Amino acid sequence: MPGPNYKNDSKPSASSTSTSAVVPSTSSTPLEVVKVEDDPLNCKKMCAKNTKPFTVFVEGNIGSGKTTFLEHFRRFEDITLLTEPVEEWRNLNGWNLLDLMYKDPPKWAMTFQSYVSLTMLDMHRRPTDTPVKLMERSIFSARYCFVEHMMRNGTLHPAQFAVLDEWFRFINHNIPIAADLIVYLKTSPSIVHERIKKRARSEEQCVPLTYIEELHKLHEDWLINRVHAECPAPVLVLDADLDLSQITEEYKKSEHQILRKAVDVVMSSPNKLSPKKPITTTPIKIVPQMRIL
Amino acid sequence: MPGPNYKNDSKPSASSTSTSAVVPSTSSTPLEVVKVEDDPLNCKKMCAKNTKPFTVFVEGNIGSGKTTFLEHFRRFEDITLLTEPVEEWRNLNGWNLLDLMYKDPPKWAMTFQSYVSLTMLDMHRRPTDTPVKLMERSIFSARYCFVEHMMRNGTLHPAQFAVLDEWFRFINHNIPIAADLIVYLKTSPSIVHERIKKRARSEEQCVPLTYIEELHKLHEDWLINRVHAECPAPVLVLDADLDLSQITEEYKKSEHQILRKAVDVVMSSPNKLSPKKPITTTPIKIVPQMRIL
Repeated sequence: MPGPNYKNDSKPSASSTSTSAVVPSTSSTPLEVVKVEDDPLNCKKMCAKNTKPFTVFVEGNIGSGKTTFLEHFRRFEDITLLTEPVEEWRNLNGWNLLDLMYKDPPKWAMTFQSYVSLTMLDMHRRPTDTPVKLMERSIFSARYCFVEHMMRNGTLHPAQFAVLDEWFRFINHNIPIAADLIVYLKTSPSIVHERIKKRARSEEQCVPLTYIEELHKLHEDWLINRVHAECPAPVLVLDADLDLSQITEEYKKSEHQILRKAVDVVMSSPNKLSPKKPITTTPIKIVPQMRIL
Repeated sequence: MPGPNYKNDSKPSASSTSTSAVVPSTSSTPLEVVKVEDDPLNCKKMCAKNTKPFTVFVEGNIGSGKTTFLEHFRRFEDITLLTEPVEEWRNLNGWNLLDLMYKDPPKWAMTFQSYVSLTMLDMHRRPTDTPVKLMERSIFSARYCFVEHMMRNGTLHPAQFAVLDEWFRFINHNIPIAADLIVYLKTSPSIVHERIKKRARSEEQCVPLTYIEELHKLHEDWLINRVHAECPAPVLVLDADLDLSQITEEYKKSEHQILRKAVDVVMSSPNKLSPKKPITTTPIKIVPQMRIL
């Protein structure tokens, strides 16, 4: 089920505006070179029904700018944005599981993470009527970063961890939750710690630097060092240490990357998408400096 | 997803040995009267692939004789028996969740029931190569009897109950776990309490009568009084107060009932089953005194 992990080190001309994408890749399923002239965005082929959208997980530490990143894509009407279901964690039949978990982690971690898995699973399975779907985090980061952290620091008993892990394995092997791309907003712990202190969201008041550092390490281990058996999709790494005035340019790179890759997928697998409209109306630039793992 | 709840009050001759089943029923989808002569068990039609077995949940209180009931059916090679996955609860990566739960219910009930749901789900989904599948209990009795009991007596916090209930709803609405028949081994609490004391299984040493009574009430509410929105299949009620010398006759009734109903299903829906061999080689008697709810 997991997508191929490939490194795209192609160096096509950055000035290319052709929609006939040539994407050298070391993927085990290399993308086909497709010439599209009369129907440049391959809309006819994309109209097949019963398809799933090009799915992107936006991953990163607390304070890495996931919300800002998602907001950047709100202007594209072809993209469905799904933010982390925090409001569901704050109100399940009137119970604030997030608050219970913060107040007494050893007592509530199991219940909270079980519900996180369910709400994330709901996000993974939610149908969209757009060809692209952007999700803030995923059931994978829930498992490989947050549950992993709770197990390592003893908040979760090993038997509780084992139950959550069995559920994760069951879901991963039996329910389609694969992604096409992971955008990793890579940050330095010290920078996001300062950022968090400035924005002062209520539940983040007491987030210590050590916690940020441990979460950073878990993201790196999962997405860069690949210590787990699998990474569910190719990873696009963005420099998310940049401040707000610079980060828009960085986001624009991923904008092209996400939209272009969506087109690539359509070209290589015409039944993949079923958009009501073209994915983008602007020419797609190939951005050679992107680092894809 | 739930099957129709109907009452079979037909009174055909008990001496009938015809395999041409006539089953008057108040079901919303009455079974067709089918004449089968050259192919009495309709094997040709049953050989369609990609079908699911005729699935029976065997439900009842502690000490109601579920194990004996299942053992009675072991001699039929056409039937797959799935016992409650107690060994999995006793050993998850070396952790005995059942024991942890008995020792500190408020601490472990959530973790234990989460794992019960997963192992039950695995039973529901397990493929069989026989046309009939008998399961000891189900994800439904886990929810409507055991989780319900833990919620009512405060072992589960209401927020923990809410998470387990959300998972149950998700599974029930998204994963095929339906049954074709429920066999309810109906007992009197005082009788099974005596039976439990005599058999003295290690973990049942301290089961008080009140617990047995409460579980009995929850089974009755679910399967007889229908206080929950749904019952996943028609219910065949057997008198399981009878002692071992008499109960074989009672089981034989259900034996015919289960096998005959399996044939009925095949007759009314030829793609339902895919047996490698006939369901039964003995003539099927219609047992008028069966009480089907």
